[in-house]
Amino acid sequence: MIFTVGHYLAERLTQIGLKHHFAVTGDCNLVLLDQLLAHGGMKQIYSCNELTCSLSAEGYARVNGAAAAIITFGADAISALNGIREAYAENLPVILISGTPNTRDPRSDLAPLRQIGMVRHITVAAEIITSAETAPAQIDHVIRTALHEKKPAYLEIACHIADQPCVRPSPVSSLCSHPAPDLESLNEAVDESLCFLEKRNRIVILVGSKLPAAEALENTTELADGLGCSITVVSAAKSLFPEEHPAFQSIYWDEVSNPRTEKIIHEADGIITLAPVWNDYSSVGWQNLIHGENVLEINPDRVTVNNRTFNGFCLKDFVREIAHRSQGRPASSKEDYQPWFFPLTTPMTNDETTRQSNIRRRSFPRGTQAEDEMPWQPQRLMATTSS
Amino acid sequence: MIFTVGHYLAERLTQIGLKHHFAVTGDCNLVLLDQLLAHGGMKQIYSCNELTCSLSAEGYARVNGAAAAIITFGADAISALNGIREAYAENLPVILISGTPNTRDPRSDLAPLRQIGMVRHITVAAEIITSAETAPAQIDHVIRTALHEKKPAYLEIACHIADQPCVRPSPVSSLCSHPAPDLESLNEAVDESLCFLEKRNRIVILVGSKLPAAEALENTTELADGLGCSITVVSAAKSLFPEEHPAFQSIYWDEVSNPRTEKIIHEADGIITLAPVWNDYSSVGWQNLIHGENVLEINPDRVTVNNRTFNGFCLKDFVREIAHRSQGRPASSKEDYQPWFFPLTTPMTNDETTRQSNIRRRSFPRGTQAEDEMPWQPQRLMATTSS
Amino acid sequence: MIFTVGHYLAERLTQIGLKHHFAVTGDCNLVLLDQLLAHGGMKQIYSCNELTCSLSAEGYARVNGAAAAIITFGADAISALNGIREAYAENLPVILISGTPNTRDPRSDLAPLRQIGMVRHITVAAEIITSAETAPAQIDHVIRTALHEKKPAYLEIACHIADQPCVRPSPVSSLCSHPAPDLESLNEAVDESLCFLEKRNRIVILVGSKLPAAEALENTTELADGLGCSITVVSAAKSLFPEEHPAFQSIYWDEVSNPRTEKIIHEADGIITLAPVWNDYSSVGWQNLIHGENVLEINPDRVTVNNRTFNGFCLKDFVREIAHRSQGRPASSKEDYQPWFFPLTTPMTNDETTRQSNIRRRSFPRGTQAEDEMPWQPQRLMATTSS
Amino acid sequence: MIFTVGHYLAERLTQIGLKHHFAVTGDCNLVLLDQLLAHGGMKQIYSCNELTCSLSAEGYARVNGAAAAIITFGADAISALNGIREAYAENLPVILISGTPNTRDPRSDLAPLRQIGMVRHITVAAEIITSAETAPAQIDHVIRTALHEKKPAYLEIACHIADQPCVRPSPVSSLCSHPAPDLESLNEAVDESLCFLEKRNRIVILVGSKLPAAEALENTTELADGLGCSITVVSAAKSLFPEEHPAFQSIYWDEVSNPRTEKIIHEADGIITLAPVWNDYSSVGWQNLIHGENVLEINPDRVTVNNRTFNGFCLKDFVREIAHRSQGRPASSKEDYQPWFFPLTTPMTNDETTRQSNIRRRSFPRGTQAEDEMPWQPQRLMATTSS
Repeated sequence: MIFTVGHYLAERLTQIGLKHHFAVTGDCNLVLLDQLLAHGGMKQIYSCNELTCSLSAEGYARVNGAAAAIITFGADAISALNGIREAYAENLPVILISGTPNTRDPRSDLAPLRQIGMVRHITVAAEIITSAETAPAQIDHVIRTALHEKKPAYLEIACHIADQPCVRPSPVSSLCSHPAPDLESLNEAVDESLCFLEKRNRIVILVGSKLPAAEALENTTELADGLGCSITVVSAAKSLFPEEHPAFQSIYWDEVSNPRTEKIIHEADGIITLAPVWNDYSSVGWQNLIHGENVLEINPDRVTVNNRTFNGFCLKDFVREIAHRSQGRPASSKEDYQPWFFPLTTPMTNDETTRQSNIRRRSFPRGTQAEDEMPWQPQRLMATTSS
Repeated sequence: MIFTVGHYLAERLTQIGLKHHFAVTGDCNLVLLDQLLAHGGMKQIYSCNELTCSLSAEGYARVNGAAAAIITFGADAISALNGIREAYAENLPVILISGTPNTRDPRSDLAPLRQIGMVRHITVAAEIITSAETAPAQIDHVIRTALHEKKPAYLEIACHIADQPCVRPSPVSSLCSHPAPDLESLNEAVDESLCFLEKRNRIVILVGSKLPAAEALENTTELADGLGCSITVVSAAKSLFPEEHPAFQSIYWDEVSNPRTEKIIHEADGIITLAPVWNDYSSVGWQNLIHGENVLEINPDRVTVNNRTFNGFCLKDFVREIAHRSQGRPASSKEDYQPWFFPLTTPMTNDETTRQSNIRRRSFPRGTQAEDEMPWQPQRLMATTSS
Repeated sequence: MIFTVGHYLAERLTQIGLKHHFAVTGDCNLVLLDQLLAHGGMKQIYSCNELTCSLSAEGYARVNGAAAAIITFGADAISALNGIREAYAENLPVILISGTPNTRDPRSDLAPLRQIGMVRHITVAAEIITSAETAPAQIDHVIRTALHEKKPAYLEIACHIADQPCVRPSPVSSLCSHPAPDLESLNEAVDESLCFLEKRNRIVILVGSKLPAAEALENTTELADGLGCSITVVSAAKSLFPEEHPAFQSIYWDEVSNPRTEKIIHEADGIITLAPVWNDYSSVGWQNLIHGENVLEINPDRVTVNNRTFNGFCLKDFVREIAHRSQGRPASSKEDYQPWFFPLTTPMTNDETTRQSNIRRRSFPRGTQAEDEMPWQPQRLMATTSS
Repeated sequence: MIFTVGHYLAERLTQIGLKHHFAVTGDCNLVLLDQLLAHGGMKQIYSCNELTCSLSAEGYARVNGAAAAIITFGADAISALNGIREAYAENLPVILISGTPNTRDPRSDLAPLRQIGMVRHITVAAEIITSAETAPAQIDHVIRTALHEKKPAYLEIACHIADQPCVRPSPVSSLCSHPAPDLESLNEAVDESLCFLEKRNRIVILVGSKLPAAEALENTTELADGLGCSITVVSAAKSLFPEEHPAFQSIYWDEVSNPRTEKIIHEADGIITLAPVWNDYSSVGWQNLIHGENVLEINPDRVTVNNRTFNGFCLKDFVREIAHRSQGRPASSKEDYQPWFFPLTTPMTNDETTRQSNIRRRSFPRGTQAEDEMPWQPQRLMATTSS
């Protein structure tokens, strides 16, 4: 079997761990879909239209870390962008792949209908493949950027290229390996942060919604344990932190908060914010942004504290390091917490789930996952309870 | 009642003949929707999501000539672009209107999520309204351009602007009136075309799919009668011309045609093409573009004949004029035609409708409307028979 | 001689009145330049680089109403955009034309270097010509749009297309003819404006910098004469109105004005603004925008008065009509004026010209032309005195 | 002194080694320029216009590895893009910085004049700074991306932000440190390449014009020495490799080559291409692209050999490693070479330099630097001889 551009793509998607891809068939991707099937590394799951195809991929990426959706060229393709914009808001590496017409056709430059101009706005990498020779670099660029930045990306493959002969790929580690942290920056950031924490007596952690993409939940628990401090979550991060943890203190949401949680935050002399998204909703109409001299801001690729800002490492590296160096520190400001468990025998009806504030004030047993995001990010509410 | 930006928009949409608009509600368009209701000129029809909202508007525009869809800002909004891209392909003036966040908010410049950058690619006018003072000019520009070019357009209205005081609009004729033709160009084009036709004995008309947007069906019939010639249609124009007309001669589609129709075209010494779209599908893989010295090309805004090209007038102006000046001309190449009527008692099942070639070779009684477009334009097949 | 795409372009540029075009030669436009020379309708003026080429064209358009600059593809081409952006600010129809590589070359899609993506931002029409068949429609669209909107436009012609056979053009009236006014809107606008003026006793006209592009200087004088009112100009319009006119009253520029002029404006109960540009400079830091119930705003394509707004006609149509219907009206608020003439024997040195405020407070004899624009528009100061 | 956004920028530019920056002053960058001066880390060099400012920076970056140019907002700014596009073609990290109007002004959204839409096409990162809080991340992103990708980048700073208080930066290593190579990919690539080389007897190296940006000249010499093979250069790389090196064999340029060099390439059974740019010029009209089974392609971020492609490391890493493992290998195909030295006493006149082919066939003594690039890349020819 001749190794083709389609095989190269299939090989790369398989290498990054996909066992399935989602597809809507059409004239411009038939050859590509055949190549993906021939490769055999993934199952091909058909969707009835492009909107469901992209949303299937978005859901798959939530569970499996990445996903691929293959569509064809045309007006319908646009509805797939809904799922892609959602993946952008949710920090999910979904690869959208569209077949396109043969670029050597007469009148092939149908500018008003070109998709890539639209897709660029909601992806971190976008490539048009019109040559088998450049395909490997383009495919690798799109997949690597999506994985590193945890955002969707886009590939457009002209229909006559998908079965062209192609060289074989290198080890997948070239796509997946994270850059090593800049140790000088990391050490200075940790020193400055420990200096900040040492002077604080009432420390509290506020967990934000970008923590899952930063893959640092376990390290966050270690940090809380090391500091012996309370943990709160912003509204959009409800259920991201296990609520049975003895330090857990419910949602902080300014005046909408549980009064006790509000008091903990407002009386703290040291707040550690962990990857929050501040918008009109999370800040209750921009009136309550947590910033300033009493805040240690830990964002996915940057730490700001004591009027200094550090980057060159990822959140996980930093939280692991600071948790490690905080162990054995006298407890700071951990409050007692009596969680109220949501009764498992009561299924959540749609009516209940829409009463968002109730959900947010309730406690969740281990395994409960709630996702509820407001404008700027997609609006959805899902609540599932494990047995 | 203070006249507001929302009223201005409602007044304009009402003036151009809309009795309904379609809407999905959300934080960023609540004030706007209230203003549209308060104006009272149109009914507000709610859609369950943005995709159906845009498709409802697209369908409404097919029947009523124009339409409006009001959505809100967010990831879901993208799926509305599906209907808009379809309206672009189908030459329908659908006005898509999106509420957006207050632009005076902190961090209001959320570039990656801005919609207008995406929408520009599939609309002929797009405006962001952030001031009541400039709103009338922006609203008028968007509506006028959509109506004149028969294409979709886009308005984005910041949520704090919709109920701001606004001046009242001028007569709607300023939006709807078509530019007068350039008579010098029109006359030269007609003279040259008549000169072309006089030398031809076997003339045939080939009707294309952009004829409805050009609003020249009646004039086309007059032209056929005046010339006494046969009429054929391209595949995508099936049912646009009444098939009981004695000069009608079925679909021309190169080698896929009815052999008799193929013969008529291939033996003609004068072919009049009326607003066709040439693509890989209509030209059977680019092998059969109807061009050259035996062709009079009449496009929506341009006529090409005898190695000269003319513009400065619209298709309807030209066809009316040439039909008028062709009356009483000896018949050229009208073939007898025995239409085969599709039996009304046999409902068309889904299976049947998918057998596209059968549909195309059958005759349709008056009132049958079939729409069937292939890639570049959306793929749909609808066939309805009137009682 | 076979008529080619290059000839078509030359014919159109000649038809709109150009006797010269400016050019920088290069691999990608050599064939095009040869075609323009072979056509013979214009002289070809060579520039030493693209920046001077575009600025030459901009200057030519100021004097002759339109201009063309032909450049080649490459990094240097970008400096031509300086002159084009200036033409945009100055409302001048400069056609920028760039040769580009053969689009059938391998690797012809060098996206990062494509010029049209950049040029779109500062032109009102931009087309890439890669087919002789579509060239006439593309050339006509670019030239017509530039002339109608008085803004620059852009054409890109692949080097292998310039000498391809092409059909001949239609009469130039199809490019140049202005749309007829919408009479219903025009009449209502005039009625409403006369109603506004009848109730005012102290009327003054304020001339803005977009008047030249509106080609309505003569009509403005008629209007002033009919109303018997004073005329002032905004700073950027210095010298656009003849200063010997008995009703002329110097520059109005809020607190920077001649105190007498400031008083005339501030005491007026009716101000007619004629095509001004309001920015931080003309409004003295946004503190003095002339709007509201005592203002009749006449803009290039819109009139706003008495809380109503009208469009569907051009400024010149409206001013002509209202001047006509104002004749014989009792004089309103004409002040005596004793112009101070700038002594012709004193050449303006560079030092003088930079003292902008002095220039603005002086009077100019007939024939003096000063152009002085500030940020948002290019900054230049030119003053010439006729003998 | 309060640390400001302007100081942050100055600190970062100083940290990456700049001792000067180039500037054109204007309303929108006055505060920024004052902040840069107050910081004191760099000298401020004024240019008479934006074109020369950008070209000065481009030249500075050639010698010093990076550069910064500060301009103001307006039509003139566009000419600076010429130098930026050139820096893009030449792989030079030039940071272009533009002041812009206060974004809280009324009517601040002057879309048609926005610069960033144009600049995006010729930079690898572009940010608009409208908040002191986000400034550090934006500044760091722009500088880091430019340095890593060796391409220009763009910053736009609203005029009211430049002197706002700002946090202090982290160590510069976070901007400059290169990602560690993916060792698995590097080792496989080296193994495969050695396997390729072992089977070849007549090996030759072909040096391309992207070698300087890859900073691997020394390693290339080691590789040549280790392999004992001849070295040739593509036309655009003339003078990049020292011509006195005993293995040097002049320019390879297909049929335009020195016949001896052409023969060496055509008879080779193993060609190592090192960072060439293949275009119509270097490939003599696309007829001679060096690809295929006898070629080891080493590009800045990818190696392709034996039908496999590898990435995840940079060119320098790979060449160093393969040179190291090739030491002591029996010589392959080194030809004798008798360089013809260009006489130092003969200054090169402009006439001479334009006779490009002569230049290319001559030999250069050590220290001669010739830069001569053709379309796709800027056209320039500079030749300097050291004493």
